[in-house]
Amino acid sequence: MARMTHQAGIALGVGFRVLANSATDSAALVCGDVHLGDDRGLPDLLAFAKSCDVLTFDHEHVPEPVLRELERVGVMTRPDRAALVYAQDKLRMRVRVEELGAPCPRWRAVTAIDHVEAFAGQTGWPVVLKAARGGYDGKGVWVVDSAAEALEVLERAAQAEVPLLVEEKVGFTRELAVQVARSPYGQVAAYPVVETVQRGGICHEVIAPAPGLDEDKAVRAQELAIELAHALDVVGMLAVELFETESGVVVNELAMRPHNSGHWTIDGARTSQFEQHLRAVLDLPLGSPRSTAPFTVMANVLGGADSDVYSRYVHVMAKDPELKVHFYGKEVRPGRKIGHVTAAGDDHGELLARVRDAAAYLKGDQQ
Amino acid sequence: MARMTHQAGIALGVGFRVLANSATDSAALVCGDVHLGDDRGLPDLLAFAKSCDVLTFDHEHVPEPVLRELERVGVMTRPDRAALVYAQDKLRMRVRVEELGAPCPRWRAVTAIDHVEAFAGQTGWPVVLKAARGGYDGKGVWVVDSAAEALEVLERAAQAEVPLLVEEKVGFTRELAVQVARSPYGQVAAYPVVETVQRGGICHEVIAPAPGLDEDKAVRAQELAIELAHALDVVGMLAVELFETESGVVVNELAMRPHNSGHWTIDGARTSQFEQHLRAVLDLPLGSPRSTAPFTVMANVLGGADSDVYSRYVHVMAKDPELKVHFYGKEVRPGRKIGHVTAAGDDHGELLARVRDAAAYLKGDQQ
Repeated sequence: MARMTHQAGIALGVGFRVLANSATDSAALVCGDVHLGDDRGLPDLLAFAKSCDVLTFDHEHVPEPVLRELERVGVMTRPDRAALVYAQDKLRMRVRVEELGAPCPRWRAVTAIDHVEAFAGQTGWPVVLKAARGGYDGKGVWVVDSAAEALEVLERAAQAEVPLLVEEKVGFTRELAVQVARSPYGQVAAYPVVETVQRGGICHEVIAPAPGLDEDKAVRAQELAIELAHALDVVGMLAVELFETESGVVVNELAMRPHNSGHWTIDGARTSQFEQHLRAVLDLPLGSPRSTAPFTVMANVLGGADSDVYSRYVHVMAKDPELKVHFYGKEVRPGRKIGHVTAAGDDHGELLARVRDAAAYLKGDQQ
Repeated sequence: MARMTHQAGIALGVGFRVLANSATDSAALVCGDVHLGDDRGLPDLLAFAKSCDVLTFDHEHVPEPVLRELERVGVMTRPDRAALVYAQDKLRMRVRVEELGAPCPRWRAVTAIDHVEAFAGQTGWPVVLKAARGGYDGKGVWVVDSAAEALEVLERAAQAEVPLLVEEKVGFTRELAVQVARSPYGQVAAYPVVETVQRGGICHEVIAPAPGLDEDKAVRAQELAIELAHALDVVGMLAVELFETESGVVVNELAMRPHNSGHWTIDGARTSQFEQHLRAVLDLPLGSPRSTAPFTVMANVLGGADSDVYSRYVHVMAKDPELKVHFYGKEVRPGRKIGHVTAAGDDHGELLARVRDAAAYLKGDQQ
């Protein structure tokens, strides 16, 4: 994310400095002003922040006590701690989003298996267990079919000191996402509502705008995101992940940063989410979120078994000169997001087929 | 140019290294891999080239003997010396382009005032004197009205050891430019023919495509550029600056690198000239040069008397959220190109008014 934000910062002519864990981090490879250090730890963040006007994050992993201390010594973080907690802690997010009257799945905090069983007694199995913060084994969401499965998650979460909540498994027709930017001044810009295609808990493709989405529903989703941005006092990009159901939309997750569901904006919107995030956190006027094509479709490129992605990349470029290829400079590991591809045009079905084909070829699934 | 090429390189995931004269060079400010040194001198270029697969240039100022030595020791430069000489030396360019049958203004090499007088006797005054290479006082083109004026240029050029040629002043209706990319493999991609609006010898605006340009004339101009690219064995971007006359087009200048007339492609074409240049010099398949809007209009932002451009920038963004602003991170000096702005849409007149307005405001002409 920081890598692509740096790209946007170059055009804006703003000073952009990155705190990276390692010199081989995606952004550290390309950014002209890199500090190495622990991007979640107070000492390095404090030292780094001294040289910045504004601090923003491309992840949710800076612990709240660290954010609190940064705030105490006068470091300007955007979004600030008070907003970020709702992107960091799913329990607090649920409490607050429900308070605000936004549609949520049924949910409750759980500390014992009885809680899950009682909840599933009302909603039926399967139910979804979520880590409120963090997770274990690199996972934070578990769909469980029975009390036995739930118990296993609870035990491992307790060992890892991860607080849990349970949510009903929403019977959605598809997943949507909507992004808005909000400036400190309170200006907002809403991007078109997109469809996100998830497989195995990973976002594989994004179609912008969501095909066939009822205009009223789309506007209501945008309004919902704007209301949340104002109510939570978000500064920067806010992504609201939604389930579309027969009766409307339901809030799934929030992210307060550029988001995978908005990568299409680099090639498909007048102002990319990365430029927009910078404009917002720097208190500049926001840019137009208008789409530049009827449809823009993005597919994530995942690493496959064969790490030699660059030899396949030539063939993808040769086959589809209209395709935009974005690589993050990451070491290839199976299942890791190492880039994305985008296509724009009139026919979302044809675009989806093209980006899927390219992403699969780059992964090494098709030879 | 290197700065914007770096931006394109980030998405391609290619290793991009810059040899910059100073740490405050436009590209050096943002690029993650910067070597400081003399970008026109053999020792630094040789040392730098050792760490690169391919060397390319964003200017024409590397002396031919330096290019020859790089070639001799096996450094791959793209375009290579044999092609670059036609972008570096206007005399050799004229000889070769005329040989190829491309339309040129009448011209001749001049070493004495008699040559200019004899030439003007045929074409009439004014005539255009051009430095074949380099120039003096930062200038390389002089429109002269009389033998007395010409003599002054000749004398100062002789002092500076600058070879000259004289060209007729073409009675053009407007100036055009056409860009093509060519790969080592011989693949070419031609961008739409654009109109360039020059004032005081400086390109102020570019309208893509050139409004009302006859379709046949546009295709002939693209074919001309493709023929030149092949004949001169150009690898990378080639810009052909043209005069449009009643009877057709006439070749004015050549550049073998990303060019000011192609800055619109960042926001207005599927593949920017910067990405395309990288694809070409890296022998990757070329991307689509297709426009993404009916018209894209670019205005250069020049420095004005007041260097505080960033305080005006906020107002430009607020006034026109659709505008794309590009700053090069250069110190503001009067008349210096410090950035550009782009707008895209259906009505080129309206777009031109918007970018002119923004560029003038950023310069400080309008308050």
